[in-house]
Amino acid sequence: MPRFQTPRGTRDFPPEEMMKRQYVFDTIRQVFESFGFSPMETPAFESWELLSAKGGGGEEVKDEIYYFRDKSNRELGLRFDLTVPMARFVASNPQLAKPFKRYQIGRAWRYDRPQAGRFREFWQADVDVIGAEGTDADAECIAVAVEALKRLGFSRFTVRLNSRKVLNSTIKSAGVDAKDAAQVFRALDKLEKIGEAEVLKELKSAVGGKQAAVIMKMIKTKGAPSSLLKGNIEGVSELREVVEKAKAYGFADRIMVDFSLVRGLDYYTGPIFEISVQAKKNVGSVGGGGRYDNLIGLLGGAKSPATGISLGVERLMEIMSDESMFSLPASRTKAFIVAVKPELKAEALAIAKRLRSEGIAVQTDLMGRNMKKQLEYADACSIPYAIIVGDKELKEKRFLLKDMSKKIQKAMSVEQIARALGKA
Amino acid sequence: MPRFQTPRGTRDFPPEEMMKRQYVFDTIRQVFESFGFSPMETPAFESWELLSAKGGGGEEVKDEIYYFRDKSNRELGLRFDLTVPMARFVASNPQLAKPFKRYQIGRAWRYDRPQAGRFREFWQADVDVIGAEGTDADAECIAVAVEALKRLGFSRFTVRLNSRKVLNSTIKSAGVDAKDAAQVFRALDKLEKIGEAEVLKELKSAVGGKQAAVIMKMIKTKGAPSSLLKGNIEGVSELREVVEKAKAYGFADRIMVDFSLVRGLDYYTGPIFEISVQAKKNVGSVGGGGRYDNLIGLLGGAKSPATGISLGVERLMEIMSDESMFSLPASRTKAFIVAVKPELKAEALAIAKRLRSEGIAVQTDLMGRNMKKQLEYADACSIPYAIIVGDKELKEKRFLLKDMSKKIQKAMSVEQIARALGKA
Repeated sequence: MPRFQTPRGTRDFPPEEMMKRQYVFDTIRQVFESFGFSPMETPAFESWELLSAKGGGGEEVKDEIYYFRDKSNRELGLRFDLTVPMARFVASNPQLAKPFKRYQIGRAWRYDRPQAGRFREFWQADVDVIGAEGTDADAECIAVAVEALKRLGFSRFTVRLNSRKVLNSTIKSAGVDAKDAAQVFRALDKLEKIGEAEVLKELKSAVGGKQAAVIMKMIKTKGAPSSLLKGNIEGVSELREVVEKAKAYGFADRIMVDFSLVRGLDYYTGPIFEISVQAKKNVGSVGGGGRYDNLIGLLGGAKSPATGISLGVERLMEIMSDESMFSLPASRTKAFIVAVKPELKAEALAIAKRLRSEGIAVQTDLMGRNMKKQLEYADACSIPYAIIVGDKELKEKRFLLKDMSKKIQKAMSVEQIARALGKA
Repeated sequence: MPRFQTPRGTRDFPPEEMMKRQYVFDTIRQVFESFGFSPMETPAFESWELLSAKGGGGEEVKDEIYYFRDKSNRELGLRFDLTVPMARFVASNPQLAKPFKRYQIGRAWRYDRPQAGRFREFWQADVDVIGAEGTDADAECIAVAVEALKRLGFSRFTVRLNSRKVLNSTIKSAGVDAKDAAQVFRALDKLEKIGEAEVLKELKSAVGGKQAAVIMKMIKTKGAPSSLLKGNIEGVSELREVVEKAKAYGFADRIMVDFSLVRGLDYYTGPIFEISVQAKKNVGSVGGGGRYDNLIGLLGGAKSPATGISLGVERLMEIMSDESMFSLPASRTKAFIVAVKPELKAEALAIAKRLRSEGIAVQTDLMGRNMKKQLEYADACSIPYAIIVGDKELKEKRFLLKDMSKKIQKAMSVEQIARALGKA
């Protein structure tokens, strides 16, 4: 048992894990940028006043976040998502050209009960479009997420679609007061977690038995957009538009309308969406988002339409590991340069310098090891090639390039080695 | 005055800043990887027990960090550097192949008084070599940092070199007890900040007037290694080795021996180094590190030799901004695809899809704007090209590629556009 451990719900990422993580981050970043989203960052912690603001997390967020005071007694908290800090930034920067399209890939923290696939420190990858009213922006956010998943190698996944406007109509037609909407949404959000019976119980105590039954019946419909998106209930025509635009992006066949989808947070106002991957292990949704036209105004900015989507990096990585979707080299180092004796170390370093300047990652011995031990280390680190520097090689200016797995070697000039490793 | 602001000492990084930051991170990462260092990550917060452990931050770290308790009353703190968490990881993972070479680029937090160039949330870029005893590892760590600075465009900088062993000899020969060494080092570390007179005062009260005067005199020597690294005081021969190896790496001419260099933290045991950039504005050191052979053992692991260096991202970026060292495009989006009328949006999206699939970042309108407004937005965002999609263009399958700054345009097939933008 080690003397010190990571705090509960947090993890170390050793190199083999971190290389996978970087691959996921880099891939997502490329896709986000290909759609013209720009990077942005905000602090890891924010004022408690912001985090608990109406329209943000609300007072009830206190149980779920890391809350603390600094030495001047300021109330602070670790950010629980990337949306509220970004909305704060937009609220205080009215000069930004609109639409403001930003992406952010970073950590957030929640004081949840740790369980499989759920951590207290986790990474999210978000895109948001601020300033665009119409469904073009909603469709683009979903399209970016779909493209990112495809680029990561996912093929079987579904985009569940609903609308807060449709949900509000449902509640209204069930005879429930608008002021109870947030409570109803919070109960419905637990459908997958706690099941229908428990949700019905919560609804009953919130809005009464008859209304609860009506709501449960109305939200149970799921299916293809063509059969469900009919009529003129508020919000339905917007969803039809999203589906229409999904055709141009090529993801319309992935859409399933699901009137039970609510999304937990209070701030949504229009279309909402969630992405589920069909995987061996059911990890729930791997991403979601929606339109939140009031948040920036509530945080003190000019009222700005806004929509966005967030990918859950932990769940994506869990599936990718489970289903062996990573095919990365075990080492980013291409070659280990072996100095056959200590006097040849400077020569090994000169070759290293040359190869590094061409962007080829190489290592040299730092342990004063003999040739055999140097090769053993290269093997232990899964470094694919070794370059042998001995007296004879130095004299002939041709060094042995050894393929560590095939166990074959060939004498080459440094230039030839650079070319061979550049392609390897 | 915006309603909500970032907590004191922290900052937002809007896209134009974040793109610079990413350029710095990406460049440093490439250099670190070219030397065979692997990425690793640890949690943002650690147990207070670890952070305050002897050999880590020590009890006195409490005044300088963000300390808090979680809802189960566990004592935690935001990490104040990347070294102590990495040492914890190594201490609890004895199976790692040695040398263990890891890099980490990430945030750390200190509850310092905010001032120019000093923030409470800041980024560091570290490399460390664990398990290698000799000066090969120290020289490599300095070489990596030197290479990173050069790759970022720095040319005028100096590597200041000293050794804790030399400092210990100095203290001993001044007649000061070894147990007072830490106190002496902490006073000397303030030399640049508070000046000689104040440091002398602190030393006097710690070890007595005569000893203080002797120490001050002995540490004042600075200069070229060839004139200063003579004799056999403990540690001097090690420094000679570092200089010898620096020749092979090509940075020997940057080394200045500075016997007043101490580095603040208690954990150093051998060679120590700091890098100073000669810039218009004096920002102090931009990086530093040294050998710390006892830390991992003190944290519960097997005693492991260790050395490393940390680059201070905030200071590097401050100089780079001050001296206009960034030459990045204002937008990563290569082209804005203008649909001349709403009916042509699907066509614009199809072209966008094609270009994105080739890794070219493009945007389409999300605001229902007319052609003129779309072009104005592209201009406001410094997007260098526009692609005009009108009826005529669609019919002829040739679209106008417009250079936004030169104000010239040419009709081209999508393939030709892809080729032109791929090179642009």
